[in-house]
Amino acid sequence: MPVFHAHIPKGHYSSDQKTAIARSLNLSLVQGLGIPKEDCFICLSEHAKDELFIHPTFMGMQRSTSALIITVLIGDHRPSVEKQQLMATITELLKQHVGISPDDVFIALIPVPNENFSFGQGMAQLAGCSPQW
Amino acid sequence: MPVFHAHIPKGHYSSDQKTAIARSLNLSLVQGLGIPKEDCFICLSEHAKDELFIHPTFMGMQRSTSALIITVLIGDHRPSVEKQQLMATITELLKQHVGISPDDVFIALIPVPNENFSFGQGMAQLAGCSPQW
Amino acid sequence: MPVFHAHIPKGHYSSDQKTAIARSLNLSLVQGLGIPKEDCFICLSEHAKDELFIHPTFMGMQRSTSALIITVLIGDHRPSVEKQQLMATITELLKQHVGISPDDVFIALIPVPNENFSFGQGMAQLAGCSPQW
Repeated sequence: MPVFHAHIPKGHYSSDQKTAIARSLNLSLVQGLGIPKEDCFICLSEHAKDELFIHPTFMGMQRSTSALIITVLIGDHRPSVEKQQLMATITELLKQHVGISPDDVFIALIPVPNENFSFGQGMAQLAGCSPQW
Repeated sequence: MPVFHAHIPKGHYSSDQKTAIARSLNLSLVQGLGIPKEDCFICLSEHAKDELFIHPTFMGMQRSTSALIITVLIGDHRPSVEKQQLMATITELLKQHVGISPDDVFIALIPVPNENFSFGQGMAQLAGCSPQW
Repeated sequence: MPVFHAHIPKGHYSSDQKTAIARSLNLSLVQGLGIPKEDCFICLSEHAKDELFIHPTFMGMQRSTSALIITVLIGDHRPSVEKQQLMATITELLKQHVGISPDDVFIALIPVPNENFSFGQGMAQLAGCSPQW
């Protein structure tokens, strides 16, 4: 149930590239955390030039006009090592599948208790059970 | 102060239906948690087909093209029972008022300390007092 | 790395005003928390009338059609006093630089562990070190 929201520059990525961004994010769960590929809940939002402000060099990066911000709602049971694996995998797959420079990928993982997710039917499917993945 | 953000498929819901989605979310606080109906802070965002990716069956649901993702910033003092009541009420009201199938409603509740909200004037109105609702 | 997302009414603010909103948010980190001005990661999203619902008076405010909702992903190490300083500074700067009434500014600070941010290269640059700012 990691839920992705990618904030991308408007008109910069083609429809195919937008789909490839989503596919890369989905695949990062499979490859980075061993989550089934069916666990796919992803939004992209385009922002015009006057709606997206990302510093070109902060923290030693060389960011381009392709730079994007990705937020991920992620189970708060994940240890540091898994979170680092996920961030590395997202960045690697966006490079492989979309050609996005690793310097252009900003990620924030927002921790959420597993019992706070409903996959449908208004039920908290993960309440009271230990995480499967 | 639960703050809602609903991510919906672009062009799928009419303007009246979008308003009914917002009204249902607002009402879920009143009916599910006993919060006053004036506590209304809601955004909707439309996402085109290449911007919204929701798996059609993961976790045993039968999702349609109406499927949506709802995030809620919610006070971190809420016990499990209240969170489950809220998720059930959201889903029920979206069915009643908008005709959305319960299988189509994905919800994530993001916990936020009450002192982290400002309702205006730059003040943290809920800092240092116990939650009223 | 506080990351801002401002939800604003569609067509209400000019392009210059949108840029001024972003500049005010960036400056709030510098003035409110002593963060370097290069730490700039900001999105704005416009919402039409049927996509943004903010109560006009809840909690004693007099909100106008300019009202907006700002979310901030912020390091979870921040004490209450710093969070309150940030909310006050955001509101003050939006008044000074954009002319937005303090009653119109709703803010939610979402706490995120510092190790959950990647500034690029897929690395968690702040993992294992104490916050510099």
